Amino acid sequence: MSVQAIAWSPSGAVRIIDQRALPEAQIERDLESAEAVAEAIRTLQVRGAPLIGIAAAMGLVAGTRALRGSPRDVFIGTIEQLSRLLGGTRPTAVDLRWALDRMARAAAATAGDGAALWERLYAEAAAILEDERAMCRRIGQAALPLVPDGANVLTHCNAGALATGGIGTALAPIYLAHEAGRRVHVFVDETRPVLQGARLTAWELAHAGIPCTVIADAAAGALMRQARVDLALVGADRIAANGDFANKIGTYGLAVLARHHGVPFYCAAPSSTIDASLPDGDKIPIEQRPPDEVKSVAGRPVVPASVAALNPAFDVTPARYVTAYVTDRGIVQPPFGADGGAPR
Amino acid sequence: MSVQAIAWSPSGAVRIIDQRALPEAQIERDLESAEAVAEAIRTLQVRGAPLIGIAAAMGLVAGTRALRGSPRDVFIGTIEQLSRLLGGTRPTAVDLRWALDRMARAAAATAGDGAALWERLYAEAAAILEDERAMCRRIGQAALPLVPDGANVLTHCNAGALATGGIGTALAPIYLAHEAGRRVHVFVDETRPVLQGARLTAWELAHAGIPCTVIADAAAGALMRQARVDLALVGADRIAANGDFANKIGTYGLAVLARHHGVPFYCAAPSSTIDASLPDGDKIPIEQRPPDEVKSVAGRPVVPASVAALNPAFDVTPARYVTAYVTDRGIVQPPFGADGGAPR
Repeated sequence: MSVQAIAWSPSGAVRIIDQRALPEAQIERDLESAEAVAEAIRTLQVRGAPLIGIAAAMGLVAGTRALRGSPRDVFIGTIEQLSRLLGGTRPTAVDLRWALDRMARAAAATAGDGAALWERLYAEAAAILEDERAMCRRIGQAALPLVPDGANVLTHCNAGALATGGIGTALAPIYLAHEAGRRVHVFVDETRPVLQGARLTAWELAHAGIPCTVIADAAAGALMRQARVDLALVGADRIAANGDFANKIGTYGLAVLARHHGVPFYCAAPSSTIDASLPDGDKIPIEQRPPDEVKSVAGRPVVPASVAALNPAFDVTPARYVTAYVTDRGIVQPPFGADGGAPR
Repeated sequence: MSVQAIAWSPSGAVRIIDQRALPEAQIERDLESAEAVAEAIRTLQVRGAPLIGIAAAMGLVAGTRALRGSPRDVFIGTIEQLSRLLGGTRPTAVDLRWALDRMARAAAATAGDGAALWERLYAEAAAILEDERAMCRRIGQAALPLVPDGANVLTHCNAGALATGGIGTALAPIYLAHEAGRRVHVFVDETRPVLQGARLTAWELAHAGIPCTVIADAAAGALMRQARVDLALVGADRIAANGDFANKIGTYGLAVLARHHGVPFYCAAPSSTIDASLPDGDKIPIEQRPPDEVKSVAGRPVVPASVAALNPAFDVTPARYVTAYVTDRGIVQPPFGADGGAPR
């Protein structure tokens, strides 16, 4: 079965798998403070749009354990300050803001001082984790008919257990198809520069016993031309009302290739990824990561020091390239309202 | 100016830059035997379709220096044996076979024993080097009008000085445009898995003072969507009679993206890259390189050991995606005969 990417430690810290160390080492870290969670999100110890939302919510709880004796205004003030810190770590994934907004609403709706507020936030973060886990399973069930026996699925980056609180988004139907005894094989884009496909998706699929083959990102076109890809399944970091969505850099090129070759191209994400406040993808902020992620690999320089590198972490795929969206509401089509869209 | 990728050493060995070590170290190696040249080609110390043809021809000469006192049949027998060894190192680039065939014809047309034959082969290898150098310059001159002042050019892999005996193929017009005072900027696909773009193209452009920016291969689509790419220029390892061509894995996907975005897509190669014996690209043999080139980077594993990786070194781009071909004959269009095609 799939791995569990996040949990509470016995002392109430946020226990994560440090995803930077995979696949060489499986290191668990207990993040004791909201600051530590923010740093873990910023440095990609924890990544994946749904997972960073969960981590931020849990980080708020872990970071206010010592304030349970505080008066309401001190507690609320700290929550606001830590939310700004956590919310500022990464700009593209809307799940982060969604989770923090949900925590803020829970606090505002709760009477009392630190003790009562903290209990409410603890319950809310636990509910977010549980909700996201359930959403993953519903995404998997909705998308299961898209993954027939013998399917060759192409995926990009990691939209699996390591990106969520559950069995993933794009990988959820693959886990369920495998559980159901279907033979499924996954082509995994290695996903430079951070190699989330090679390091994380391949690792969690291997962990679950699901056959997969890693390819250089640039090999996807040739595979599609050879009719070796039956469908493409990717996640999302933010989906605008019209269906345009941001996802890991390279998703857009893959979508164009899929369209060109008649390969169905699906975007799978929980409703929390939909940002109905944005009419289209043009306004989604695209995080620019440090050029050094491109310029060196495993600590070794692969680009001359004097040469520039560009490192946009995401690109935007217009809705017209997407065969369908799979959310916890089912297989859906835009436009998406605040309700997450109507089933198709 | 551009670097010189290959030369004779004072003792008649083949002097190369070991391209595996770039950009961290510039290491010259003197390859004393044909076996050493074959190993250098196989392990990508020397790479690039035109350059491995030159290296093979020079390797034959270096490897028969000691046979200058031999009778004709011994010398010819050795030449045939070493040609098989060198010709078997890499299957896709036709320049290798072209250069070895040219050497064999020169030997067959020459009377006498080892001394006379060796002198003739030495002259032929020197002529191949000189011819390829001149072809690079002619390619550059023919393609120069395609690279206007202010152009942003996207290239893939390395089709520059490090891939040829001269100023490159795809990079040749960029060198000449820069020399002519035009402002040119190059987006360099890093070109996983071997990173010839990041390591080699960026290095030689920086060496020549030409502005460039390295990107992850998967970022090319987003750049084109943002209209930041004016044209794409790539090399070729083998061009079939109808214009289909093999080049570094990823070239095909780039061609599809270029077509989709209305970005002109040019293939630049010397006439020696045309294999008029193949009607189309389907019969071009595609080298499968070791999976470890994908599974580890800089000696560090990036894919779990139990997971498979696919590593086709090349893909085939059908002619219909190519705006025009630039060879030493000018800007040309298929079909290509043994003469290398007619100017457009």
